[in-house]
Amino acid sequence: MNVLEERILKDGIVKEGNVLKVDSFLNHQMDIHLFGEMGKEFKSRFADKPINKILTIEASGIGIACIVAQQFDVPVVFAKKSQSINLEGEMYVAEVESFTHKCKNNVIVAQKFLSPEDHVLIIDDFLANGCALQGLIRIVQAAGATVEGIGIAIEKGFQSGGRIIRNLGFQLESLAVIEKMNAQTGEIVFREQ
Amino acid sequence: MNVLEERILKDGIVKEGNVLKVDSFLNHQMDIHLFGEMGKEFKSRFADKPINKILTIEASGIGIACIVAQQFDVPVVFAKKSQSINLEGEMYVAEVESFTHKCKNNVIVAQKFLSPEDHVLIIDDFLANGCALQGLIRIVQAAGATVEGIGIAIEKGFQSGGRIIRNLGFQLESLAVIEKMNAQTGEIVFREQ
Repeated sequence: MNVLEERILKDGIVKEGNVLKVDSFLNHQMDIHLFGEMGKEFKSRFADKPINKILTIEASGIGIACIVAQQFDVPVVFAKKSQSINLEGEMYVAEVESFTHKCKNNVIVAQKFLSPEDHVLIIDDFLANGCALQGLIRIVQAAGATVEGIGIAIEKGFQSGGRIIRNLGFQLESLAVIEKMNAQTGEIVFREQ
Repeated sequence: MNVLEERILKDGIVKEGNVLKVDSFLNHQMDIHLFGEMGKEFKSRFADKPINKILTIEASGIGIACIVAQQFDVPVVFAKKSQSINLEGEMYVAEVESFTHKCKNNVIVAQKFLSPEDHVLIIDDFLANGCALQGLIRIVQAAGATVEGIGIAIEKGFQSGGRIIRNLGFQLESLAVIEKMNAQTGEIVFREQ
């Protein structure tokens, strides 16, 4: 069991509707030490990849991505989410549907920050249905850049996002994959890695 | 001239309407090395303060806050912005008006992440009129916590936010204070520190 899984068992709270609250250490209050450990683990899992940029999406991916970026010694680009497009200049835009918020959003990255020379590690906090992630992949591909890998903190293994992304041939590494969880008992079962 | 001021002169772009674009290193693409240097500078300016938590606001404050937090060895809490309030649990909420986006937003922090024991350093990327910052200060005070200081990357010194916050007695440290800038010539003049 890795340090993130241990922390989820200690401080994660299972809510009705397949919701896992990790806001005390991951996505509202952020434990920077934990992020550092996660960064080392991602570095080891993607050690052989020529990563020169990390891409994430606002808001809760940004903190993890910045600390992970220290391990790879590369800059971070964060995609913006917007219901309307009013950013200036040339943009890559992918429309994605949010599972959590039941609405469509545009995922947006300025074209000048992704190019065919870029070898990108995508980082995000959660993967469930993978809609936002698919938008990020589309944007990297639209730029002619290479997705070298995808690093996720927590994957909901009982939803389809992870399987789809792996079936498409991407190296997707989730530090904690939840097989099942139970809001009545609070039980959380991780996939063996 | 510090490392952030040098970088602004090198890569910042002055646009009409008192807009300074720093998206290549600060708030879309993020230079993590630069953030590390900024963190050291904030640590030296707030060295005597008993800071045990950093508070910032989504989205572009988060990356800076996380790297700065390493210098202070404390967790980060990021406030959420929302036009509606549908977050679960007990929340501190401050309504603020955005200068950039010409709309009102709620700044929201879960009550469990701020308490009277907290000594807070507020970190953000920009200070202009200071509306978001005033919301963050109100939230810290509503929690009975102490604002030990405010660290800003770039302050627009020709707008009123910084003066108001300093007049209220807060230790506000901006790494780069822009006295004036000119979209025609691209000239940027910093306040002497």
